[in-house]
Order: sequence, then C-alpha cells, then structure tokens
Amino acid sequence: MQESETTENIILSIEWRGDHVRILDQTFLPGRTVYSDIRDVGRMWEAIKKMRVRGAPAIGIAAAYGLYLGIRDLPENSYPSFAIEVNRIAEYLNSARPTAVNLSWALERIKTTIHAHKEEPIGNIKDVVLKVAQTIHDEDKRVCKSIGLNGVELIPKKAQILTHCNTGGLATGQFGTALSVIYHAHIAKKKIHVWVDETRPLLQGARLTAWELMRAEIPMKLVTDSMAGHLMQTGQVDLVIVGTDRVAANGDMANKIGTYSLAVLAAYHYIPFYVATPASPIDLNIGSGAEIPIEERDAKEITTIGSSEVAPAKVQVYNPAFDVTPHALITAYITEKGIIKPDFSENLKSVFGK
Amino acid sequence: MQESETTENIILSIEWRGDHVRILDQTFLPGRTVYSDIRDVGRMWEAIKKMRVRGAPAIGIAAAYGLYLGIRDLPENSYPSFAIEVNRIAEYLNSARPTAVNLSWALERIKTTIHAHKEEPIGNIKDVVLKVAQTIHDEDKRVCKSIGLNGVELIPKKAQILTHCNTGGLATGQFGTALSVIYHAHIAKKKIHVWVDETRPLLQGARLTAWELMRAEIPMKLVTDSMAGHLMQTGQVDLVIVGTDRVAANGDMANKIGTYSLAVLAAYHYIPFYVATPASPIDLNIGSGAEIPIEERDAKEITTIGSSEVAPAKVQVYNPAFDVTPHALITAYITEKGIIKPDFSENLKSVFGK
Repeated sequence: MQESETTENIILSIEWRGDHVRILDQTFLPGRTVYSDIRDVGRMWEAIKKMRVRGAPAIGIAAAYGLYLGIRDLPENSYPSFAIEVNRIAEYLNSARPTAVNLSWALERIKTTIHAHKEEPIGNIKDVVLKVAQTIHDEDKRVCKSIGLNGVELIPKKAQILTHCNTGGLATGQFGTALSVIYHAHIAKKKIHVWVDETRPLLQGARLTAWELMRAEIPMKLVTDSMAGHLMQTGQVDLVIVGTDRVAANGDMANKIGTYSLAVLAAYHYIPFYVATPASPIDLNIGSGAEIPIEERDAKEITTIGSSEVAPAKVQVYNPAFDVTPHALITAYITEKGIIKPDFSENLKSVFGK
Repeated sequence: MQESETTENIILSIEWRGDHVRILDQTFLPGRTVYSDIRDVGRMWEAIKKMRVRGAPAIGIAAAYGLYLGIRDLPENSYPSFAIEVNRIAEYLNSARPTAVNLSWALERIKTTIHAHKEEPIGNIKDVVLKVAQTIHDEDKRVCKSIGLNGVELIPKKAQILTHCNTGGLATGQFGTALSVIYHAHIAKKKIHVWVDETRPLLQGARLTAWELMRAEIPMKLVTDSMAGHLMQTGQVDLVIVGTDRVAANGDMANKIGTYSLAVLAAYHYIPFYVATPASPIDLNIGSGAEIPIEERDAKEITTIGSSEVAPAKVQVYNPAFDVTPHALITAYITEKGIIKPDFSENLKSVFGK
C-alpha cells in the first residue's frame, strides 16, 4: 500500500513492543538515532526526567506505560496493598516532571481505572492497565492523524510551507500537529517544500523538525528565524502552519516565541496562517490571550549554545518562552474535529464547548 | 569634561600609538578583551586576513597604517625603487581581503599621494603617508560622530531602542553608524535602553554589539531575533535603528538578513524605523533594491555554532546574507550630512548627488 510505505518513514518516538517500551532517545538528536528499550519503571522515570522522551502527549504516553512496567510484577494476593503500591509508583513517576500536565493526567486516568476494577483479580487489573496505556497512546495517534487529514485540504497541490519549532512525531504518539498536516500533504502526493526555521533559543526546528522531515524524505530547507520576512517578500512562502500551547475562547493563542512575528509577517504579505491543535490546549475558560501568562526562561538558553559561549559574560538577557498571537492574524485552526474558521469565539465554543 | 569621561568607555578598535598601531583583536571577543601592538606590515596583513580587524571602514584604516609600517624603513636614496616597493607592499596588503572595497580604496589613495609628492625627499614622503593614514582614520571618526550627533534629535528623552547586527566602533574608526546614534543619545543623557538582537547566523549582535554597549555602560538586554515582534506588541520598543550595506537611488536598501522582517514589524506597530549610514554605501547609480544582488553564504554558518553541530548532518540550508528593505518602510536616513526624509529619490539626490 502506498500510504503505509510512506508512513514507515515517519518516526515513532515511543512504541510498545510486547513486553517493553522502545523510545527514540531524543537527547542524542540530531547527531545520532538511538533507540532505548525500557523494561522497568526506574528507567522510565529517568527517561522522562532527562527528556529522552519529551513533548506533552509523548510524556503522558510514556508515563502510562511506565506505570504498567512498575506494577506488572507486584504480588497479586491483596488489593489494598496493591493499591498502595500503585499510588507510590504513580507519585514516583509524577516526580520526574512535576509540571507536565499530560503526565499527571495519564496517571490519574489509570488510577481511576484500577479503582473501577478493584473487585477483579489483580492479574486482570494489570491487563486492564496495559490496555489503558495502549488506549492513551492510540487515542493520541488517532487525534494527530485526524488533524493531519483534516488539514490536507488547505494545502495547495504545490506549496511552500513555513513552520516553526517542533510539532511532530517526536512530541506525540505519531505525526504530531502542524507536522501531521505536512506529513499527510506529502502522503497525499502534494508537491510540498518546507522551510524549517531553527527556532532560537532551543533550536527545536534545526535539531528536531529538520531531522523528522529529512527522515520522511520531505523536501525541506533550514533557515534562521530572521529569514522569514525575506522568504515571504520574495514569494517563497504560500502558507504558514504552527502548533500551539494554549488557545483562549476568542481564538487568541500562545505558542513558542517567534510565532507572533511570523503571524504579522504572514498578514503583511497576505499569506494564510494556520494553527494545528488537538482539543487539549483549547481552554474556553480563558477569555483572551491577555490572560495567558508568559514564562521567562534562563538566560543561558540564549548565551550558551552547546559548549560555546556566544555572548559576553554577565550580559543582561530577556528570554520569554512564548508569545501571544491575536485571533485576527489567524486564518483558521486545524483540529481533530475539523477546520475552524472565524468567528473563533462562536465556532470554538460550538465545536469544543461542553 | 562630561563628554570625554563618557566617551572613554567607547572602544577604539584601532589606534595609532606614536610608532605603532594598537588593535583590539576581535577574534577573542566576547570572551576576552585582547589588544595587539602591530609594528610591521606582516603582522598587519595577518590581522586583516584573520579578521582580528573587521568592518569595512576599520579595514581601510588598518591597511593605510599597514602601508606606512611597510615603507617606513625602506632605503631613502632612489624614488623609482621606493615606488616599486610601495606597489609591492600595497599589493601584498590588498591580498589579505581582496574583495574589501575600503581596503583597496585606502591603498589607492595613499599611492596617489606618494606619486603627487615624488619630487620631495623620501623621508618627507614617508611622513606624508603617515599623515594620510591618520587623515583617513580621522575622517572616518568625524563622519561617524556626525551621524551620531545628527541622529540624537530623533531619540526621545526616554526611549527603548531595538538594533540589529553590529554597527559600532568595532567596525569603524570610532562610534560606528547606528550605534553612534545610540552612543550620542547616551552621552546627551537621554534615558535609553537598547534591545540587542543576537543576529543569527553569525551572532554579531550577541558577540559584538552586546560587548560594546556593556563596555559603554549603556543599559541593554540581549534577545533572539524572533523576539522583536513580541517586544513591539508589548510596547517595549519606541524605535528601531539599523545600518546598511547599500542604498539605492529610490531609498531601498540592503542590510544584514533579518532587517526586512524588523522593518515590516515596525511598520505594523507604527514604530519609526531609521537607517544610519555614511555617504559611501549610497549608490545613486542603482535605481532600486531589486538591482542589489543578495549574497548566499555557507550552510555551516547555520548548522555549526562554535564547536556544536546544531542540525542534522547533510541538512539542506538556505543562507542569504542580506535582505532588501523597501523605501516605504523607512522613516528616515541618518547621515553625516543630516537627516534625510522621504521623498528619498529626491532628497538623496539633492544631498549626495554630484
């Protein structure tokens, strides 16, 4: 089949292999492609802690499998002592990245399932836990795939696409969000060329997105963040697709620093600007982008690259991790439930409201 | 005196010290401040070749002093053999950076002067050569200072200024162009704060501009290029000042990649966008920016930072060194002959036309 041939090149950052988890260790990228087989919860804790697995959805999936690895060899005679151990292991896993929302969400979901099955033999409960972990993984893959398939119609038959940061299979169960649209446009045989901006300071574009697209054999070129204007001015960008960390009820959204500049440049050049997202970052309780706090990160992210100091010692630095793009600059959201166009206040509510 | 106290902090990248040249060796920046005393033409050739001295005006000044160092010990008995040696030394110096226009311009100017004085004793001619070298140096300082003084009126009493790349004393005789305006606003006791963008790929902002401003004790913060939009959106930029490599007759101009993005962002946020320049890059023979060729540089500048590989091996890269900002996005030019406002076609011609 044509599709499976093509999707073989699209990496899986995490995989259940019958009795263990295989992860693509992202700390070695882009220099080396190293897979690690993880057979116990201690190794999984370490992999999450050291960011061998990263990206909100991927961390949730890893934690779910990690919990199963932690409980599978527990004694099966007493539910109360089993439940105590489950809580202990879940707390331990949660301590690897205490602020990662998907991590605690996945662990809570499994604990709830265990409680719902408490009358059953513990051996059965263990099987159910593995099933839930696999379900969390499958759901994420399905959501990402839907985003990708839904977005394909927005991509012209021949298109130059600019993207920012890493929104791909490395951060999710498979395919990613903005990159899922790119993967599926490629699978649908559209002639696409992707401009990958390096995404300073942490260079997720250069290190991760470039690596993913090269591996999938999708034509791409790496540029610095400062080249976007020149590319648009010279007619080399047909559309921009990015992901998002948080979407407010009016359609304003926060994403990796640099996104807002791209949105302004796109609007100035009459280029469509799309945001690909699953339901999870859409928060209808937040009225507008003004309510989204902007995290400031360490100066070292800007002053040190690899082992090189690139700025004077003790230089003052401003390092906001995100910026806010107002809804007026966004052409459409691409979600697993379809494409959402303005008026976003109305349409986000009607699709994602309770 | 207040002014000289303040200007003491503004570095001299090159200085004549009675019988030798002292340069600030820029290959050690920003980590270390190393001065080198240069007493012979061979050392000056090496300093230009290895970019210990860099920036078009500074290279011209260095070459002029270098030629003097090369001829000062020549025998003084025969003008013809003296002239042959002068030509040989000038050719040798020119070979250090064969494409640097200011280098060959400075050497030609000295050769012309020598020829004009050929009836005089060779000892006198040597003195004249040193004088011409010092004149070239002084002229550049004076032009840079005029640009700075002329620009001060455009800076509010309290201002947040964004600048790009390095346009400072490190590249010129003193003060620089865009940075000269910043230095003189500071000397005039305006309360300024400068956003220095790092200027990928070569990081001239992080390495050189940050260093210069810290040394002059001008309040500044380093940001990545991708943060400009966010800074403007949040009201933290009152004006943008940049330099230029080439100005066309209609006021379009080419400058370091990323300048055009800043100009669009500034226009979108109704923020003034100024270009500081001496007469030399203004080329009234070029009709518009469309005629300015854009140099493409090595992929390694993007994929390698210091000793770190930041992108996958064999990644495709696009690395234009410059972009073109159309005249409609430029609020004014700041030159040694005053501030030039639109209509640029008319006003550039009336000030700089022959």
